[in-house]
Amino acid sequence: MTVGVGVIGTGMIGTQHVHRLSRAVMGSSVAAVFDVATDRAAALAQEVGARAAGSWSELVEDPQVDAVLIASPGDLHAEQVLACLAAGKPVLCEKPLATTADDALKVVQAEAAGGRRLIQVGFMRRYDAGFRDVKAAIDGGVIGEPLLAHAVHRNPGVPDTFVGEMSLTDSLVHEFDTFRWLFGQEITATTVVKVRQSPLGAAHLRDPQIVLLELANGAVVDAESFVNCQYGYDVRCEIVGSTVTVALDNPRTTMVLGEGRRGESVPPDWGVRFGQAYADELQEWIGALAGGATIAHGASDAWDGYAASVVAETAVASFAQHARTEVQLVDRPALYDREAGR
Amino acid sequence: MTVGVGVIGTGMIGTQHVHRLSRAVMGSSVAAVFDVATDRAAALAQEVGARAAGSWSELVEDPQVDAVLIASPGDLHAEQVLACLAAGKPVLCEKPLATTADDALKVVQAEAAGGRRLIQVGFMRRYDAGFRDVKAAIDGGVIGEPLLAHAVHRNPGVPDTFVGEMSLTDSLVHEFDTFRWLFGQEITATTVVKVRQSPLGAAHLRDPQIVLLELANGAVVDAESFVNCQYGYDVRCEIVGSTVTVALDNPRTTMVLGEGRRGESVPPDWGVRFGQAYADELQEWIGALAGGATIAHGASDAWDGYAASVVAETAVASFAQHARTEVQLVDRPALYDREAGR
Amino acid sequence: MTVGVGVIGTGMIGTQHVHRLSRAVMGSSVAAVFDVATDRAAALAQEVGARAAGSWSELVEDPQVDAVLIASPGDLHAEQVLACLAAGKPVLCEKPLATTADDALKVVQAEAAGGRRLIQVGFMRRYDAGFRDVKAAIDGGVIGEPLLAHAVHRNPGVPDTFVGEMSLTDSLVHEFDTFRWLFGQEITATTVVKVRQSPLGAAHLRDPQIVLLELANGAVVDAESFVNCQYGYDVRCEIVGSTVTVALDNPRTTMVLGEGRRGESVPPDWGVRFGQAYADELQEWIGALAGGATIAHGASDAWDGYAASVVAETAVASFAQHARTEVQLVDRPALYDREAGR
Amino acid sequence: MTVGVGVIGTGMIGTQHVHRLSRAVMGSSVAAVFDVATDRAAALAQEVGARAAGSWSELVEDPQVDAVLIASPGDLHAEQVLACLAAGKPVLCEKPLATTADDALKVVQAEAAGGRRLIQVGFMRRYDAGFRDVKAAIDGGVIGEPLLAHAVHRNPGVPDTFVGEMSLTDSLVHEFDTFRWLFGQEITATTVVKVRQSPLGAAHLRDPQIVLLELANGAVVDAESFVNCQYGYDVRCEIVGSTVTVALDNPRTTMVLGEGRRGESVPPDWGVRFGQAYADELQEWIGALAGGATIAHGASDAWDGYAASVVAETAVASFAQHARTEVQLVDRPALYDREAGR
Repeated sequence: MTVGVGVIGTGMIGTQHVHRLSRAVMGSSVAAVFDVATDRAAALAQEVGARAAGSWSELVEDPQVDAVLIASPGDLHAEQVLACLAAGKPVLCEKPLATTADDALKVVQAEAAGGRRLIQVGFMRRYDAGFRDVKAAIDGGVIGEPLLAHAVHRNPGVPDTFVGEMSLTDSLVHEFDTFRWLFGQEITATTVVKVRQSPLGAAHLRDPQIVLLELANGAVVDAESFVNCQYGYDVRCEIVGSTVTVALDNPRTTMVLGEGRRGESVPPDWGVRFGQAYADELQEWIGALAGGATIAHGASDAWDGYAASVVAETAVASFAQHARTEVQLVDRPALYDREAGR
Repeated sequence: MTVGVGVIGTGMIGTQHVHRLSRAVMGSSVAAVFDVATDRAAALAQEVGARAAGSWSELVEDPQVDAVLIASPGDLHAEQVLACLAAGKPVLCEKPLATTADDALKVVQAEAAGGRRLIQVGFMRRYDAGFRDVKAAIDGGVIGEPLLAHAVHRNPGVPDTFVGEMSLTDSLVHEFDTFRWLFGQEITATTVVKVRQSPLGAAHLRDPQIVLLELANGAVVDAESFVNCQYGYDVRCEIVGSTVTVALDNPRTTMVLGEGRRGESVPPDWGVRFGQAYADELQEWIGALAGGATIAHGASDAWDGYAASVVAETAVASFAQHARTEVQLVDRPALYDREAGR
Repeated sequence: MTVGVGVIGTGMIGTQHVHRLSRAVMGSSVAAVFDVATDRAAALAQEVGARAAGSWSELVEDPQVDAVLIASPGDLHAEQVLACLAAGKPVLCEKPLATTADDALKVVQAEAAGGRRLIQVGFMRRYDAGFRDVKAAIDGGVIGEPLLAHAVHRNPGVPDTFVGEMSLTDSLVHEFDTFRWLFGQEITATTVVKVRQSPLGAAHLRDPQIVLLELANGAVVDAESFVNCQYGYDVRCEIVGSTVTVALDNPRTTMVLGEGRRGESVPPDWGVRFGQAYADELQEWIGALAGGATIAHGASDAWDGYAASVVAETAVASFAQHARTEVQLVDRPALYDREAGR
Repeated sequence: MTVGVGVIGTGMIGTQHVHRLSRAVMGSSVAAVFDVATDRAAALAQEVGARAAGSWSELVEDPQVDAVLIASPGDLHAEQVLACLAAGKPVLCEKPLATTADDALKVVQAEAAGGRRLIQVGFMRRYDAGFRDVKAAIDGGVIGEPLLAHAVHRNPGVPDTFVGEMSLTDSLVHEFDTFRWLFGQEITATTVVKVRQSPLGAAHLRDPQIVLLELANGAVVDAESFVNCQYGYDVRCEIVGSTVTVALDNPRTTMVLGEGRRGESVPPDWGVRFGQAYADELQEWIGALAGGATIAHGASDAWDGYAASVVAETAVASFAQHARTEVQLVDRPALYDREAGR
């Protein structure tokens, strides 16, 4: 059985997903594509033998579309996900699930009311080999009790469209999901720490910054965000256990000795670093759907997407108020009754 | 278009290939399976919805079989490959192409007479990300002129069936292909150097040993084979250029700090180390066939398989005679008229 | 000219210093030794050909004693240092300069009144090759503008005598000096962050913990203290600059491949990790004195010792009050008029 | 007791030794200095308060000279060492002990006739922390049985005075001593392997090259010499044991992340790489003399110097004859009756 996927949004990431679904993922075909940039959508549709839908709602309703992948601008996500729920179709929504915690909550409540998990949120790190090794070390008891973590998330630079609190809502939001997942604990409070600013950063950004995340079991994560570090895309962390620590490094295949130095390359961007994770995310999703499930095992679900949105909003408040701010989550519906973050 | 593949041999590697072709490779299906262990073949065929052929020649002739993958015992390879040639079907033959250089030559001559390259030999390292990075560094001029290389190829241990000169013909044969490919040069002589034997090795093995490979342009490789190193599966090399060196390390995702040490894990076996390379090899082969080609770009072809066999036989002679031994290749047929090893 | 040193305190570190001064440091001799454990002091004195003084004040007054090294319990340091000032003798005082900021201030004021810097405080990291390389990278502009730092300071375990806030006053106090020195900036505030406790820690300790240090120029350091990490003595840090980061790793000489892992050893304790730094500290001190100076270039002086004490006291207050606490320093006397931390 | 040292030769290394002996080594003073460049010798003598001797033989006879350090051109070593033997004075001779094996043998025979070991040869690697860790791992049984080793010895470049077979006699001679010492075995044969030449090397050099060393117990070392590798001074090796391998890496203190790469620096030259080893060599020598011995424990003695010379001469013959060449040593005099290489 081939899963027909409808893809909403044909920007960079949407286009990559269309290519992956049609070329690299077993068991899927791209049934329909939509973008407000209709020419781009049409060209892409033709390239992969899909239909160019006239609107995103038409795409959702299309009987050839078994499942929907949302890669549109974030402020449309909640409405589009709700439409998928209404149509009873599985949906993989690129992060964020919604741009406000309230909207994310509406999605959670709608899904909970339906009684069936259909929504998956695109936190692709859960499919990265390195992060999975870290998770396995924690869950396997290799490090004893996990107590705290250090994390860095650096980009060489960001486009002019990267503004305001996006280092929290767009960049560190990955860490919000990552550490909920790794520790299997909700985040209960955030503190955004003001740091000396890089002279190379855009004037409208606060960059770099450090965010403290407190988890329900008392563990703490200090996470650095630095979106114009200049030298590369660098995502690393060290989880400190009671007996052992495990650290995620950048993948390495070769070492070069030259010009007085011995070293390895740092990924230039997130596409290089996490390209395989994106492919594996899609493959596991399609595989789950082909097997009759509506969401892949271990994936970020709507609750995870909601929690990440609340944490991001809390961090923005902490930033604005220069103070530690507590995370307020609603009671988790029974539909999501498994360990937090799993 | 889906490529129907017939798989001959359902031992460990054949079974893995069947699973990859049916689950992980885009554009292929397993059309037929054969093994002298007919029950095993039948069970596997049923599992993936393929036909269990009554003989390997029947499989080759099967009109549902667009291409053949040979994973039978090595001494059957040449005959089976020749049958594929006769049937005009593309074939991916696990290494070795043949167990004697003479048989390999017959295959080359038959293919050359046919005037069309149909044969690909399963030297999967050419699909490994690390080896590809090394190749790119050399070809891109990053290291200046490549002058020499150091290589190690270690297994934690080998089964009792690993006997005689198999460390040359079965293990180091990978290095023979690798360094022809990396340097783009034929190997012109080999010297097997006697080394102090491990007390843990089987009495009938000479283990470890060092083999010197001389390349046509004067470059030299010293390659260590150690098939019972105990600690893991460890394939590394360093290519020394006139200005820079590039070294292949084991892939690393995480570092563990514990019990007084900081370190990374070494792959336990070749399946873990090169599993992705096998998958990528199959995907590129199927992709090439689906695109109308008969062999993937950059793959080991029959000439490469022949050359590797001759080098292995030369190394065995060097071992027996305790002397440097020159590699004698026939003139390369025009069909293979590209840079050696490419 | 040989510098005659009087050593007060012959516990573990005092005894090591006596041995270094008599065996490994050029230009010094141990003139006198004192300890309340008179037998131990007498034996050590005899071993190195020194006099066993009847009291520490007698030692300070001894005309054979050109300079004093204080390795007594911390609560005696201030009084002993003041006596050295009164005697006009250079003194190297093991950290802390005093156990209260008030006492440290008295020392600073007395020295400032005397108009001559005679006091050096034993923050030995300033002599470690790795920390010096980090300092050189910062000062040399290699990393651009230094913006923030991450630090860990872990011990495998601590004795029962390690109690209360000693993880701040005895362990992290090294980081307080280190980052003042590396950044050339005073610390202006500290925040001790409560972290999930290790089940292996003594009940009376809060372990691990994270401390945020704010520097005068806005840079921030997050420093982890973990005094029972089990696996080794592990001091590392990463300084994040506007273009480059530089990280201090444990020294490495060899790599071991065994039992499925590839790695290097972690120092078992601070003696192994910083033994050379202690020796170099003494050598530079003696060299400075032999050359007519009263303190080594770049060493921690009384002001540095005072500042570290104030930061430690501030951190203790932050711990007690669960709140960010500002560091209150007196105006720096002109005697110490150079860049802070230098 | 202060050991008065006479230093013959005030070129770069001689001058460094004079400075070390007068500034950094406990228990020594430079009593006299000689060089045919009399002005340079006089200036250096004045700088350190030594006498400028009128000839090297006058220096050897000087009653203020308790021990002699020879840093003159290599072709003078044998004669000068013999004079020290005649004078009954301990001597530390920079490598080589002699420029011909015959001359080295004369020195061995003279010393053996005297019945007392007075001669130490300056193979300073035996004092390097990394090489000592490798030695300890082997001797401690950490790696099981040592079976083979891989080694590289690279210089960024060499002066015009580096000619002919100096890559064997001047550069790889360090490996000849190192592996005799590490394995505790004599080298029994050498094979110099011709390798593709670097286009950047001087026309009169064969560079790089690979030399195979066979040890008495069957272990084999492949050692690369590359004297114009361009990128740095790089000495590494990996000792392969029956269960574990141990590898010597360049020392590392810090890691730099910048410009798309993460790495550590490679030493620029041997002075940086082995400066501490030279200092420790002198300190252990002086310490041994001060303690009444005539040679430091574990140092290279005259037999080691002779053996290294014979191996170097054998390698030169192998180079000239393009053939494996056996090492011919005389019977070892009883004076050197300890494990070879110790």
